[in-house]
Amino acid sequence: MWHETYLKTVLKPDYVYASEHLLPQLFDALTAHSLMLDAQRCPHAADAVRLLRQLRATHFPKYDPLIEDVFFTVDQQLAAQDPDAAGAMRTALSRNDLDMTIYRLSARERLLRAALRLLNLRQALLNLATREIETVIVAYTHHQPAQPTTLAHYLGGLENVLARDTERMFNALGRVNLSPMGAVALGGTSFPIDRHLTAQLLAFDRPIENTYDAVSASDWQVELACTITVTATTLSRGVHDLLFWASRGLLTLEDGLVQGSSVMPQKRNPVALEHARTKFSKAIGITQSVILSAHNVPFGDINDPGPDMQPPLHTMWQEFREGTELLTAALTSPRINRAAWLREAETGESVVTELADAIARHTGQGFRYAHNTVKTLLDNLHGAGRELPSTTPQDLKELGVILSPAELLQALNPAAFVASRTTYGGPAPAVMGGALAAAHGRLQGDFTRHQQVTQRFADARRRLEGGAP
Amino acid sequence: MWHETYLKTVLKPDYVYASEHLLPQLFDALTAHSLMLDAQRCPHAADAVRLLRQLRATHFPKYDPLIEDVFFTVDQQLAAQDPDAAGAMRTALSRNDLDMTIYRLSARERLLRAALRLLNLRQALLNLATREIETVIVAYTHHQPAQPTTLAHYLGGLENVLARDTERMFNALGRVNLSPMGAVALGGTSFPIDRHLTAQLLAFDRPIENTYDAVSASDWQVELACTITVTATTLSRGVHDLLFWASRGLLTLEDGLVQGSSVMPQKRNPVALEHARTKFSKAIGITQSVILSAHNVPFGDINDPGPDMQPPLHTMWQEFREGTELLTAALTSPRINRAAWLREAETGESVVTELADAIARHTGQGFRYAHNTVKTLLDNLHGAGRELPSTTPQDLKELGVILSPAELLQALNPAAFVASRTTYGGPAPAVMGGALAAAHGRLQGDFTRHQQVTQRFADARRRLEGGAP
Amino acid sequence: MWHETYLKTVLKPDYVYASEHLLPQLFDALTAHSLMLDAQRCPHAADAVRLLRQLRATHFPKYDPLIEDVFFTVDQQLAAQDPDAAGAMRTALSRNDLDMTIYRLSARERLLRAALRLLNLRQALLNLATREIETVIVAYTHHQPAQPTTLAHYLGGLENVLARDTERMFNALGRVNLSPMGAVALGGTSFPIDRHLTAQLLAFDRPIENTYDAVSASDWQVELACTITVTATTLSRGVHDLLFWASRGLLTLEDGLVQGSSVMPQKRNPVALEHARTKFSKAIGITQSVILSAHNVPFGDINDPGPDMQPPLHTMWQEFREGTELLTAALTSPRINRAAWLREAETGESVVTELADAIARHTGQGFRYAHNTVKTLLDNLHGAGRELPSTTPQDLKELGVILSPAELLQALNPAAFVASRTTYGGPAPAVMGGALAAAHGRLQGDFTRHQQVTQRFADARRRLEGGAP
Amino acid sequence: MWHETYLKTVLKPDYVYASEHLLPQLFDALTAHSLMLDAQRCPHAADAVRLLRQLRATHFPKYDPLIEDVFFTVDQQLAAQDPDAAGAMRTALSRNDLDMTIYRLSARERLLRAALRLLNLRQALLNLATREIETVIVAYTHHQPAQPTTLAHYLGGLENVLARDTERMFNALGRVNLSPMGAVALGGTSFPIDRHLTAQLLAFDRPIENTYDAVSASDWQVELACTITVTATTLSRGVHDLLFWASRGLLTLEDGLVQGSSVMPQKRNPVALEHARTKFSKAIGITQSVILSAHNVPFGDINDPGPDMQPPLHTMWQEFREGTELLTAALTSPRINRAAWLREAETGESVVTELADAIARHTGQGFRYAHNTVKTLLDNLHGAGRELPSTTPQDLKELGVILSPAELLQALNPAAFVASRTTYGGPAPAVMGGALAAAHGRLQGDFTRHQQVTQRFADARRRLEGGAP
Repeated sequence: MWHETYLKTVLKPDYVYASEHLLPQLFDALTAHSLMLDAQRCPHAADAVRLLRQLRATHFPKYDPLIEDVFFTVDQQLAAQDPDAAGAMRTALSRNDLDMTIYRLSARERLLRAALRLLNLRQALLNLATREIETVIVAYTHHQPAQPTTLAHYLGGLENVLARDTERMFNALGRVNLSPMGAVALGGTSFPIDRHLTAQLLAFDRPIENTYDAVSASDWQVELACTITVTATTLSRGVHDLLFWASRGLLTLEDGLVQGSSVMPQKRNPVALEHARTKFSKAIGITQSVILSAHNVPFGDINDPGPDMQPPLHTMWQEFREGTELLTAALTSPRINRAAWLREAETGESVVTELADAIARHTGQGFRYAHNTVKTLLDNLHGAGRELPSTTPQDLKELGVILSPAELLQALNPAAFVASRTTYGGPAPAVMGGALAAAHGRLQGDFTRHQQVTQRFADARRRLEGGAP
Repeated sequence: MWHETYLKTVLKPDYVYASEHLLPQLFDALTAHSLMLDAQRCPHAADAVRLLRQLRATHFPKYDPLIEDVFFTVDQQLAAQDPDAAGAMRTALSRNDLDMTIYRLSARERLLRAALRLLNLRQALLNLATREIETVIVAYTHHQPAQPTTLAHYLGGLENVLARDTERMFNALGRVNLSPMGAVALGGTSFPIDRHLTAQLLAFDRPIENTYDAVSASDWQVELACTITVTATTLSRGVHDLLFWASRGLLTLEDGLVQGSSVMPQKRNPVALEHARTKFSKAIGITQSVILSAHNVPFGDINDPGPDMQPPLHTMWQEFREGTELLTAALTSPRINRAAWLREAETGESVVTELADAIARHTGQGFRYAHNTVKTLLDNLHGAGRELPSTTPQDLKELGVILSPAELLQALNPAAFVASRTTYGGPAPAVMGGALAAAHGRLQGDFTRHQQVTQRFADARRRLEGGAP
Repeated sequence: MWHETYLKTVLKPDYVYASEHLLPQLFDALTAHSLMLDAQRCPHAADAVRLLRQLRATHFPKYDPLIEDVFFTVDQQLAAQDPDAAGAMRTALSRNDLDMTIYRLSARERLLRAALRLLNLRQALLNLATREIETVIVAYTHHQPAQPTTLAHYLGGLENVLARDTERMFNALGRVNLSPMGAVALGGTSFPIDRHLTAQLLAFDRPIENTYDAVSASDWQVELACTITVTATTLSRGVHDLLFWASRGLLTLEDGLVQGSSVMPQKRNPVALEHARTKFSKAIGITQSVILSAHNVPFGDINDPGPDMQPPLHTMWQEFREGTELLTAALTSPRINRAAWLREAETGESVVTELADAIARHTGQGFRYAHNTVKTLLDNLHGAGRELPSTTPQDLKELGVILSPAELLQALNPAAFVASRTTYGGPAPAVMGGALAAAHGRLQGDFTRHQQVTQRFADARRRLEGGAP
Repeated sequence: MWHETYLKTVLKPDYVYASEHLLPQLFDALTAHSLMLDAQRCPHAADAVRLLRQLRATHFPKYDPLIEDVFFTVDQQLAAQDPDAAGAMRTALSRNDLDMTIYRLSARERLLRAALRLLNLRQALLNLATREIETVIVAYTHHQPAQPTTLAHYLGGLENVLARDTERMFNALGRVNLSPMGAVALGGTSFPIDRHLTAQLLAFDRPIENTYDAVSASDWQVELACTITVTATTLSRGVHDLLFWASRGLLTLEDGLVQGSSVMPQKRNPVALEHARTKFSKAIGITQSVILSAHNVPFGDINDPGPDMQPPLHTMWQEFREGTELLTAALTSPRINRAAWLREAETGESVVTELADAIARHTGQGFRYAHNTVKTLLDNLHGAGRELPSTTPQDLKELGVILSPAELLQALNPAAFVASRTTYGGPAPAVMGGALAAAHGRLQGDFTRHQQVTQRFADARRRLEGGAP
């Protein structure tokens, strides 16, 4: 009956995908719908509820080319046992609103799973930052050594971005967790249904207000794609830096995250980070499949942002979760080469901003003057083949600046540089300690919030399955 | 001094872009910084404030290859008049935090401008929906006639998506409107600055908590790109349908939005919609430039998500604004061919869902049975070369269904179909009227909120310019 | 030994992917390498060849967490039977050159499979065009009826684009079919190998000239992604039109490609086309994963454009192939509603270009004048509530144009319009017949070329397997 | 008459864009068309040619809201001087075929300009490679030191990819350089035109075979976008490495390509490379605007891949050209820190592949054994806190391997490592010298081919302008 090509490229893979990934959501939606019908006094709806609860506990059938999809599989199973129950369940129901409901139920679970990975990563970042709160590193700007700061300052900054990403995820959840049920094909029905009740049974925040919107909109899916894109670009930047540090021996991954070479015996490649990078690239890339599936198509019920968009969303969630897990693993117990980092700070020129600040303070001639003075000092040193640590008070005196040996030493000391950066948000360990404590507190709050929502959804499912309330 | 290629491809275009688009923000930031320094008792900072207010009121110099950028142009102008003031202004200031501040100030204004266009479009949609609340149309699913509904139902559904987009924009604004000032190069400073004061003077919600984050993060820019992507995909779907209707003569644009042909005299092309479609395509497309500029680069101060990302963001805002304006214009006073639409509803088969509903109700045999019965009826009619409106009670009786002539007439009447869809969110004019009223109310709330934020930013600028508070 | 996360997210899925998709290529490459070593008189290499041929015929082991990947699985199997043979095979070999070779061998096969689907689609287009060479349709421009042409003209035009795409695929093949073997890690080896021989054994066109390039380049993969993008965008446009026609009943898919609705009994949705559309959207979208995996990463041997890029390429090929198959199925025996199409041509105004041409010819006043005259005629008709077919010679006479009744009839006849378009490349059946014959000839040439290359690769594999030459 | 929004967002910017970028092409196409008409004995066409040649030499008018576009500007100018000439020119001409012709004429010029930049970059790479043919560097794989090679080997490998990109550009040119002229609206005309002659006058390779294809296809534009994407991803990888080297002081840009900091006096940022990176990111990103404008739109004459796609293509070419120019500038005379690079090769472990090769050769036990032996050696050394250069023959003897002191020294010497890599395509200076010579030869061939095509197009324009043949 079906064209062989259609069977092979659409019906069968859709069935396989749905039976692997969407059955709990299918039964949730059908059961909630039937419960609502029963509450509206629809005859036989209670039987449908009972049968659905039995069916979901049994093994779901393998693909049968004679049955169109998982919905009709359930429909026929019900009809075989009790045609009236099947007929009741079909009242005021379409695959249009049903499918969109299933996709939203699935999406909210996947979003929560992704959010959890992000919380775990934030935890790893804060833990490592706390451990390395005194570790002086040289921060680079424009790919050149810029200023001393601490590893904690960098890691804490990255965690702050991810805290905003968590907020984005919760924002998005509020727009995902809306109920299409009762929209039927697109215009509701002439039967007296109660969309609010179905929504409540499914732990949705509320029904979508317009039934046409309910079966047509793709905005929530594109937003999920975008939310992942935002986070994944930030993470790609973090991975860049970790690999840059690993390439210079400043950071070493634990053995279980490192691979060797089949030809170069010395190799210990930080491959966990490399694979994390590509997983983020691929998470971002696949969102284009989501966007294109919602581009220049009708605003109405169609397959593009329906069943066809689910596999790319699946890939997106998976790449994102795996990239985040790899990154979390890499950050859990890396070896930090503190000595090498300090050496770079002490032998390079990254401290000279503080020297300029000190000159500005001591001379009272403003930072503009101080900046120029230090430039001249560096030119003089380079011209004489000398390096910055060899600077003497005399060198400065020749430029009209009087600093005592102790003041000069202080101005050229990376740890002192960092300790003096007590600006709100700066790396001075005292300040950073407070910032990390605040970040830890916010993270705990996010964990709690995450746990509460997860529980709420799990409770709804348990009730729909017929479990104790 | 500069390489000719560097001058031509970077320094000059950057200067031109900044002088055209970023000067008010530059002066805002420098003035707020200097006011803060003065409040912290930094000598000469008050003079810097005074001079900056004078300079911003004068004509900004044309590009001079001897001066690196707009910042150093201001720096040198100040220094020429009062070296101490210039030196003061440079205290605890870097182009790193300054640039990021300017980009955020600019972004929040552009976001508000885009949001206003979206509010105007929502207004046009609701106005047209209110006008066409009784206009029966045939809604299509999977590119085939599906069910009668009203034009208001479709338009109201589309507006509801855009209301969620407005919410997204306000969510994003909260993450844009944060102050990088005082982060200096990346680690703050050893001078006793007050980042909260600077933030407040610039009407930012608060300082970014970590100074490394402040000069490095690109998440807020990628989020802006994504917010536009979400909305633009939805709008591309709306445009698809408007063009589909226009191609069938169901909707006609006003003359000023239509172009003819140089060779086909009969042509009246709905080009405003076509250009709107491409503008949305281009708005989505250009976001890839934003995303790629933040992909696999260091998390730190670099040019990629800095000056280099501003032109594509500029293009994105412009394409989005123009597409939205064109769409708003197209929806403001289109001619709706109500008769043609009703004819399609009356002569096609899109009403048969209600026939099945009626059968289910009358027979009590459930929707499953009713659906199959109507399929058989249609097969019989097609086999006999008849069309649906010719159906008689006898036709149904032969299938075991008893409907009176009046009941049958009612079940096949598109307007009755619509009127009976009184489900929450459905198209029945009574229900839809309430939904439109609620949507109007929400839109007014959004207009008010938009106006308040806009005012708050304008007030801050006026105060920084030295105007009356 | 391996971190659990690394096992789960990288090593195991990579092994599973490779054992499902890359084993023939792995054995091809190792066998060719060993044959070359033997020809270079490397001891025990002949034994390696013999063992590899045995192994490839046996069942490949399931994933074992103690073995890193499929290469080391083979390595250990060999070593268990003959350590010397295993040691020989490892000479001048790295996973770097080996993997890139395997990916290229796989890519050329997939490219050929995709190209075959495209050839089949071209065949379907030409067949349908030949059948519908006289079928008058109204071509639309800017979403409005423009001019009569034939269905053959449209379909032939689309086939011509796909012929260029076939050319693109063959162009790309020439850059894929190059041998990395012998590049070893990146710099070749100090052993006296013969890279040309290995390349020849694998039916590569030649070795890649620079060994660093050999293990590093991703250009050929990005080109494959781009080649698919080019074709898929064109196909998305074709699908748009087929769906537009289907939505108006001008084209109907065969039953096996159509799905109904669970709630709307009348529905016969042309879903094969809809799914084809999304498959093309997803094929284009996933290329972004390929591009991002090659963006801002080192030019050198890394995982991003290596193993990590294979799954998205796999998805890309699959979506493309399936979309093309669905479209081919849809075009193989659609029902064309010729009567409805002709009615549209006869009752609308799409013929008036020819009326203007006729006026230009008869009056000798140039097309500019004629175009304006027809515009006036249409305004007059519309003003009087008349339609174009009611035009009389008198109507034209009032505008200063003398056409006989026969001339007018001819000028307003769609079939005559088409028959007069005998321009090179135009729709006149006589001209179009020649164009279709030429297109058929070119297609046969492409089929032959495709078959020859396919055979050449198959022959090489058979020889490497140890089969008769 | 036009809606204010339409004027502002479409008509005026289109006019401005066309007058800045497309006038020569407009006059070329109109002149060639009129010359063809004249050759076909169309009255007054010769006058049109004469007037067009006059007009193109005069100043083109500024935007006038009463005239639709640049075509109608020319049309009205002609009509004002000679209505018959204007009427003739309009014969068998539509903006549909005219616009597509203009875009193709423009595209082929821009493609050639981009190709020239690529040739210049290849020249810079080969020049630097020739200079650094003996410069030993440590090549990294997976972000870890891998093996010694030469800078020439790396640069030569990169040039080889770009040589393939040049080939891609010439391939694409063959599909761009086809003539749409004579397709008129879409179906040709009933006038007896000569499409081959028009094509020849415009130096197109031939007319597009199907007139519907001629006005509808976007494949050639998407291919251009893809061609740039392929090259730009490769260049992004090259830039990654140059910045990695610059960050470690191995490579220093000349002063004119470096910027300092407003706050950090020591800074000399390699900003030319950073901006090149973003320009490539943006070139890739903007192609998405091109792709989306050709996605899910009708296959027919529409604005999306017409005028609306030209600005993003313009941006794409510009970003690509500027990125390539910056990269060429950076590679023209960088300072290479040969000593530092050699030090890394001599003090690290990147030479041990050759040690394993040597052991394999000396022991005859195969590479598998040798590789394991070296791993054990390294473990022993690390366990004893020793570094590789301290290895003695005794260390190896304890592992059962006998190497003389001289053999050991040779096996650990980076320059010897490189010199022994004489494999086809390897870095040994003798081999590399030949490869560079061949690459230089190929490049000269490409320069010649480029010059010939450029000349051919310039000659055609000169003739159309009325200049001496």
